[in-house]
Amino acid sequence: MKKYLKEHEWSIIEEGFDPANHEISESVFSIGNGHMGQRANFEETYTGPTLQGSYMAGVYYPDKTRVGWWKNGYPEYFAKVLNSTNWIGLKVIIDDEELDLNQAKVSEFVRELNMKEGYLQRTFTAELQNGKIIKVQATRFVSIVDKEVGALKYEITPFNFSGTLSLTSYLDGDIKNEDANYDEKFWDPVNTWTRENRASVTVKTKKLDFYFCSTVETQIFTNNQKLEITSKSEEARKYAGLVYDVPLTKGESTTIYKYAANITNRDHDHQQLEAVSTDVLDHAVAKGFETLRQEQADAWASKWLNSDIIIKGDVAAQQGIRFNIFQLNQTYTGEDSRLNIGPKGFTGEKYGGSTYWDTEAYCLPFYLSTADQKIARNLLVYRYNHLEKAKENARKLGFEKGALYPMVTMNGEECHNEWEITFEEIHRNGAIAYAIYNYVNYTGDKSYLGEYGIEVLVEISRFWEERVNYVPHKDVYMILGVTGPNEYENNVNNNWYTNLISSWTMRYTIDVLNHLQETDQELYQQWIDKLQLKQAEVKQWEEIIAKMYYPKDEEKEIFLQQDNFLDKEIIPVDQLEDKHLPLNQNWSWDRILRSCFIKQADVLQGLYFLDHEFDIETIRRNFDFYEPITIHESSLSPCVHSILACRLGYKEKAYEMYLRTARLDLDNYNNDTEDGCHTTSMAGTWMSVVHGFGGLKVKENQLILSPFIPGQWQSFSFKVLFRGARLCIQVDQEKVTIINETDTPLDLVIYEKERHLDQNATISVQI
Amino acid sequence: MKKYLKEHEWSIIEEGFDPANHEISESVFSIGNGHMGQRANFEETYTGPTLQGSYMAGVYYPDKTRVGWWKNGYPEYFAKVLNSTNWIGLKVIIDDEELDLNQAKVSEFVRELNMKEGYLQRTFTAELQNGKIIKVQATRFVSIVDKEVGALKYEITPFNFSGTLSLTSYLDGDIKNEDANYDEKFWDPVNTWTRENRASVTVKTKKLDFYFCSTVETQIFTNNQKLEITSKSEEARKYAGLVYDVPLTKGESTTIYKYAANITNRDHDHQQLEAVSTDVLDHAVAKGFETLRQEQADAWASKWLNSDIIIKGDVAAQQGIRFNIFQLNQTYTGEDSRLNIGPKGFTGEKYGGSTYWDTEAYCLPFYLSTADQKIARNLLVYRYNHLEKAKENARKLGFEKGALYPMVTMNGEECHNEWEITFEEIHRNGAIAYAIYNYVNYTGDKSYLGEYGIEVLVEISRFWEERVNYVPHKDVYMILGVTGPNEYENNVNNNWYTNLISSWTMRYTIDVLNHLQETDQELYQQWIDKLQLKQAEVKQWEEIIAKMYYPKDEEKEIFLQQDNFLDKEIIPVDQLEDKHLPLNQNWSWDRILRSCFIKQADVLQGLYFLDHEFDIETIRRNFDFYEPITIHESSLSPCVHSILACRLGYKEKAYEMYLRTARLDLDNYNNDTEDGCHTTSMAGTWMSVVHGFGGLKVKENQLILSPFIPGQWQSFSFKVLFRGARLCIQVDQEKVTIINETDTPLDLVIYEKERHLDQNATISVQI
Repeated sequence: MKKYLKEHEWSIIEEGFDPANHEISESVFSIGNGHMGQRANFEETYTGPTLQGSYMAGVYYPDKTRVGWWKNGYPEYFAKVLNSTNWIGLKVIIDDEELDLNQAKVSEFVRELNMKEGYLQRTFTAELQNGKIIKVQATRFVSIVDKEVGALKYEITPFNFSGTLSLTSYLDGDIKNEDANYDEKFWDPVNTWTRENRASVTVKTKKLDFYFCSTVETQIFTNNQKLEITSKSEEARKYAGLVYDVPLTKGESTTIYKYAANITNRDHDHQQLEAVSTDVLDHAVAKGFETLRQEQADAWASKWLNSDIIIKGDVAAQQGIRFNIFQLNQTYTGEDSRLNIGPKGFTGEKYGGSTYWDTEAYCLPFYLSTADQKIARNLLVYRYNHLEKAKENARKLGFEKGALYPMVTMNGEECHNEWEITFEEIHRNGAIAYAIYNYVNYTGDKSYLGEYGIEVLVEISRFWEERVNYVPHKDVYMILGVTGPNEYENNVNNNWYTNLISSWTMRYTIDVLNHLQETDQELYQQWIDKLQLKQAEVKQWEEIIAKMYYPKDEEKEIFLQQDNFLDKEIIPVDQLEDKHLPLNQNWSWDRILRSCFIKQADVLQGLYFLDHEFDIETIRRNFDFYEPITIHESSLSPCVHSILACRLGYKEKAYEMYLRTARLDLDNYNNDTEDGCHTTSMAGTWMSVVHGFGGLKVKENQLILSPFIPGQWQSFSFKVLFRGARLCIQVDQEKVTIINETDTPLDLVIYEKERHLDQNATISVQI
Repeated sequence: MKKYLKEHEWSIIEEGFDPANHEISESVFSIGNGHMGQRANFEETYTGPTLQGSYMAGVYYPDKTRVGWWKNGYPEYFAKVLNSTNWIGLKVIIDDEELDLNQAKVSEFVRELNMKEGYLQRTFTAELQNGKIIKVQATRFVSIVDKEVGALKYEITPFNFSGTLSLTSYLDGDIKNEDANYDEKFWDPVNTWTRENRASVTVKTKKLDFYFCSTVETQIFTNNQKLEITSKSEEARKYAGLVYDVPLTKGESTTIYKYAANITNRDHDHQQLEAVSTDVLDHAVAKGFETLRQEQADAWASKWLNSDIIIKGDVAAQQGIRFNIFQLNQTYTGEDSRLNIGPKGFTGEKYGGSTYWDTEAYCLPFYLSTADQKIARNLLVYRYNHLEKAKENARKLGFEKGALYPMVTMNGEECHNEWEITFEEIHRNGAIAYAIYNYVNYTGDKSYLGEYGIEVLVEISRFWEERVNYVPHKDVYMILGVTGPNEYENNVNNNWYTNLISSWTMRYTIDVLNHLQETDQELYQQWIDKLQLKQAEVKQWEEIIAKMYYPKDEEKEIFLQQDNFLDKEIIPVDQLEDKHLPLNQNWSWDRILRSCFIKQADVLQGLYFLDHEFDIETIRRNFDFYEPITIHESSLSPCVHSILACRLGYKEKAYEMYLRTARLDLDNYNNDTEDGCHTTSMAGTWMSVVHGFGGLKVKENQLILSPFIPGQWQSFSFKVLFRGARLCIQVDQEKVTIINETDTPLDLVIYEKERHLDQNATISVQI
C-alpha cells in the first residue's frame, strides 16, 4: 500500500509519473458510462507494464473452464466480459521518434479524473531521446448522454523545435483477454475500412455471435484551424488506421480530436452496425467535442444532485466517498435490465465482469436511494429473466423442483467451478429473495410482487424445501453441507445465516401469496395456476419454518455460525501477529478453514438484513462475539460491521470499519487495485455512511433516520430519494437538518420520533 | 461392462478383434517388470483408437499444475510418469500396402497374456485391401531377469501370395503424455544413430534431466536362416529406424526379432548410456530370444512358487486372482527403494503413476507374505527417504514441527491440488506409521525401528500433536477440518478414523521409544539427540491420547464417522434406484457430500487396521450400520469389507464383496479399464482371499489362520512366507491342510488352537 494520489474534493489527481503506479492508476482513473468503459490507458504507445482494457457491457465470451479436478455438475464455460477493440489508439511520432512515456523523460505529469464533470485528463511534458520537448494534454470521456459515443482531445505543443508529427489514429480489434484460460483470442474479423478521416473495424466473437463495430473520425486542428490533410490508410486483420503528416511549429498547439461510435448487436441488428455507427458518429461529430463535454458535465451534475455526499473537514474522506459514488454511477445506470454490476465494473477483468450476490446484498440500496426506482427494479428484473436458467441449474444439481440462482453469472448460467462455492454457497438464493423484499419495502412498489416477484420467490422457496433435510430423532429441519457468507468455512452443517435466510424466504413467500390473495384474487389465481402451486407445498414451508434448526450457544446466548463452531480455538484477530496477514496470502487453506477467523459478516449478515426481527441486546451479544474474530478479508465485510456498530452506538468501531473501505482503491489498501477497482464494495461504503452514520432504514413505509457524526468530521450530508421526495440530510456535531428538495411532503421518523416534512421544507433536530 | 475375455486358468485370452475393446485390452494385456512396462499396443501401425504407452519406472516429469482457482499451499507441479520412447514399433508394408488392423480384414485374432511364463502373444490373419492375406504371430515380453531388456518376435507368413515386405523397425522418442496439462511434449532430443542392424535414440526430459536411451537390434530370419539384408537408415528428431526389403514366399514364414536395451540415468551415468545400452543389448542378443524367454518362464515360476493362489471349481475366479498377482509382480519387484506402486502400475497414465496411501494400506501385505522381507522393507524405506520432504510439506502448510507425508507423490513432494484432499486427507500420515507396525508385526524385524522407523514415527506424532486442538469447555482434543478415507465427505470435524489413527500413532511411537530404551540404550539416546526429542513432547502425546475425542452414538453403540453424522438422512444403498449409480457420475458433488453414502471403508478401516483393540460385537455393530450405506465407489473398498465380513462370519457378504474386485479389470466393471488397470486394488483382492477367506493374521509373533471356503469353490490354496518358512494352505469344503514347504519349523494358530508345524511337514484340520 502506497499513497501517491493527491487529496482533492472533486478530482482524483496523480502528480508525477511513476511507471510502478501506472497499472494501479489505469484502474483508478477508469471511465465508464454503463454501456461501455475502459481503463485509463494512454492514447499513445506505451511499452511499460500496462493492462489495456476496453469493455462493452454485456458482451461476453464463454471461455472454456480451466479446472484441475473435474466435479460432476461443474459448468463447462466461464463467461467473461470481453476486452474489445481499442478505439483510443494514437501513434505519435515526432521527427521519426515515437512518443512513449516508458522511453521519454517525463515531467509536469498530471493525471486527473474529474468526477464532477466526468472526464479524464492528462498533461505532461516529454523530452524525447532526440532532445525534442513536447507538451501534451489529453482529455477523454465516454458520454453518459450518448452512450455509444466516446471522444478524446489530444493537444501537442512543441516546446523547443519545429518539425513533423507523424500521427496514426487507429482502431485495433486484435485484442486478447488477459484472463483467457487458454491464451486464445476471442474475436474474429468481420470488416475493416478507412475513408477520408474515418476508420472502422467490426469484429465478431468466436462464439455466441456478438458483433462489435467501432467507427472513429479523426480531426486535426492547428491554431483553431481544422487542417485538411490527406491521410494514408493502414489496414490489417481487425485493424484500421489513418496516418497523417502534420507540420509542427514551435510553441503552436496541434489538437487531435477523435470521436468514436461503439456499437454492438446487443442493441442493433448486426447487419446494420456499420450504418448505425456512421449515424451515431455523424451526430457526435456534429455536436463537437466541447458540446459533448458540456452535456457530459450537465448530466453528471444531475447525477450528483441525487447522490452526492458531502463531508466537511476531511478532504480524504470527501474524495473517497465521491470516488465510490462516481464509480458506481459509471458502472451501472440501470436502463438495460440485461446488464448488471461486475465486481470490478469496467476497470479490469478479474471475476470476469460477472454478476455475484454483491448486487443484491450490497449494491441495490445505493441505486434504491439515489436513482429512479426503475433502475433498482431493473436489477430485480435481471434475475427474473434468469429464472428459467436458475431452474435448469437446480435440475443439473439433482433437484426436482425450484430454482438455484448461480453464484457467478453473465447470462443466468453458472460460471463458477469450486464445488464449495458453486454447489454449496446457496445462501445467494436468499439474497435474491431478500432484494425483492428490500425493493418493495423501500419503494412501496408492491406491483412488482404480482408482476414478477412472486414467481422468483416461489421457485426459491421450492428449492429450500427440497434442500433441507428432516432429522427424525431431533424433530428438526437442517441444511447440511453449505458455505455461508464467510467463505473461510466450507461444507459446514447448519450455517445459521443460511438456515435463517431460507426460512425467512419461505415465510416472505407465504406473506406475498397472502397479500396477492387479499388484494387481487384473479392475479393470485393466475400465479397459482402458472406455478402449479399446491397447498401442500405451502404447508410444507410452514412446517419447515416452524421446525428449522438454529444452532446456538445457550451459555453465551449467541447464535452459532454453524454446528460445533465453539469447538474451534477462539482467538481475537488483534492477537494475530502481522506476519500472518492477510491470512489468505499466508495460510494454507485448511488452516484458514479450521481457524475461527471470519472473512466477512455471516451471523452478523443475518442480523443486519433482518435486524427488525432481533432485539438490540441479541445483536449486541453476537456482534461482541463475532466482530473480534472477523478478519475482514473481503472488501464487502467492513460495511455491515460499520452499520451494526452504528446501531449499537459503537462509534469508534463504526468509524474504524468505515475507514477500511472508504479509500480501498485510492490507497490500494489490498495491494490489488492494478487488477481493477472493488466496485461492488464501493456500494458498501456508501451504505456505511447513509445506513450507518445516517441511520437510514425503512420500516412500514416510513423513512427512519438516526444520524450520528464521527468526531473526525465537521459535518456530512447525503441525498436520498424516497417515495417521490428528494431529501438532503445534513449532519453536523450539533444538529441534523433535513431538507425536502421536492414538492412531495413526507412523514418520517427522526431519532425514533415521527416528524412531518412539508414540501420544500427544512427541519432541524438537535443531536 | 462387457465381458469379452475368455476364461482360462493361466492366461488372459481375447478371441476375435473388436476395435471397441482394443484400449481396454491394451490395459489388461500390459506387460511390465518393475523397471519398465508398457500397454499392449500393437507393434505395427494401428490407426484406430489407441493409447500408446511405454513407461520407465521412476522417470517422471513435473508438469505445471492445472487449477481453476489457486489456493495457498498448492504445489506448482504435478509429477507424472513419463510416456517414453516406443521401442516396439514396426512398420509393415506388404507390396506397397501398410498393415493396419484398422483397415485390414482381420480373422483368427487371438491375444493372450501368458501369466505363467510372463509374455504377451498375438496371432491373427489379415486380408489387406489388395487381397493379400498374411498370418502373423507376435510375441513379446520385458524380462524380469534382465530388467533393461525387452524382446519381441514377429512372424509373418504370406498365405496367398509371394511378394515383398518393406519393414521399418524403429524407435520413436517423439512421445506426448496423454495426461499433459498443457499439450506440451516433455522430451528433448539428445542423440540418434543407426548402424548395421541397430538403432538408438537418446532423449532427455525438459526438466529434471532424466535421460533415456533405447537401443534396439533387429534380426530377420526366413526358414530359420538369418537374412543378411542391407537396411536403409531413417533418422529424424528423436527418431531412428531401419528399413528392410524382404522377399516373401507364399507359405514361408519370415521372423523378425527385435531386442531392446532400455537404459536410464537413474541407474547409469548419463554420458555412459549409449555404451551401457550397447553392452546390455550385446548380452541380450547373445542369449537370443528363446533363451531369454525360457529364463523369463523360469523366473516367473519362482514368483508363482511364493505367491500363487489356486482356486478349484471356478475358472473365472482362478483367472481373476492370478491376474491380480501377476500384475502386482509386474509392477513392483522391490529391489529399488526409490520406486513405489502407482495406482495403475505401467498400464496407463491416470493418477500420474504416483504413490498414494494405497501402498501402505493395501499393497504392503501382499509383498510381506509373498516376497523376501526386504521387498516390503524397501516400501518403508521409500517413505523414510521422503521424510525431509514430508517435513518441508508440513512447514509449507504452516506447521512448526513434524512431518506430513503427501497425498500423491513421486519424489516426496506433494503433487495433488484439491484442498480437501491435499490439505485435509491427513489420515495418510497414520497409514505410513501403521505400515511400520504392520511390517514389524509380520516379520518380527524390530531392527527396522531403530534403523529408520522411529524417526518417521516421531515426526508423524509431532505433526498430530500440532494438528489437534484442545477444547477447554469439553476437556478433549479434537481434529477439525479433515477428509477421512471416505472421500465422499470433505472438511469434517472429528473423523473417527483420523482421530483413532493419530492417537494410535502417538501410542505406538511411545511404545517404540520404550522398546528402544529397553533394548539399546545407546541407540535410543542417539535418536533422542538427533531428533531433539523432549520429554515434554512425549508427555503431550500421552495427554492427547488420554483426552482424544471419539464421536459415538450412545444409543446405537456405534462410532460416528464424524461429528453429527446421524443428522444425515440414513438410506441403505439397496434402496437407491439404479439410475443414480455410480453416484460420482450422476450426482453433483454437494449431493454426494450431504448424503450418507460412503465411498470406501472409514470407521471400518479403523476397525480393520486395529481389530485387535476392539471386541467382535463392537465390530459387528459398526459393520451392520456402515456396510449397508457404503457404496464402494473406490476399488479399494470391497476388500476391507470382505475381510471384516469373514471375521464376523458373514460368508455371503464376504464372497459378494470379494467378487466386486476379483475381476474388476478383466470384466471392466467400472467402465474405465481403458485408462489402465486398478493395480493397487488388486492387492486388496489378494487380501480378501488370504486375510479374509484364509483368516490370516499375525499376533504376538504368531501366524494365525482361520480359513473358510466360499460354497461356490471346491477348494482354494494360497502360499505365504512367514519368518523363514513357506507355507501352502489348502482349504476344501471339509478340511484345511497346511504344508510347510521349507526346513523352518513353525508354531502357528489354526482356528484359535496352537499347532506345531515341523519342517516340511503337513497338518490337516477339519473345518
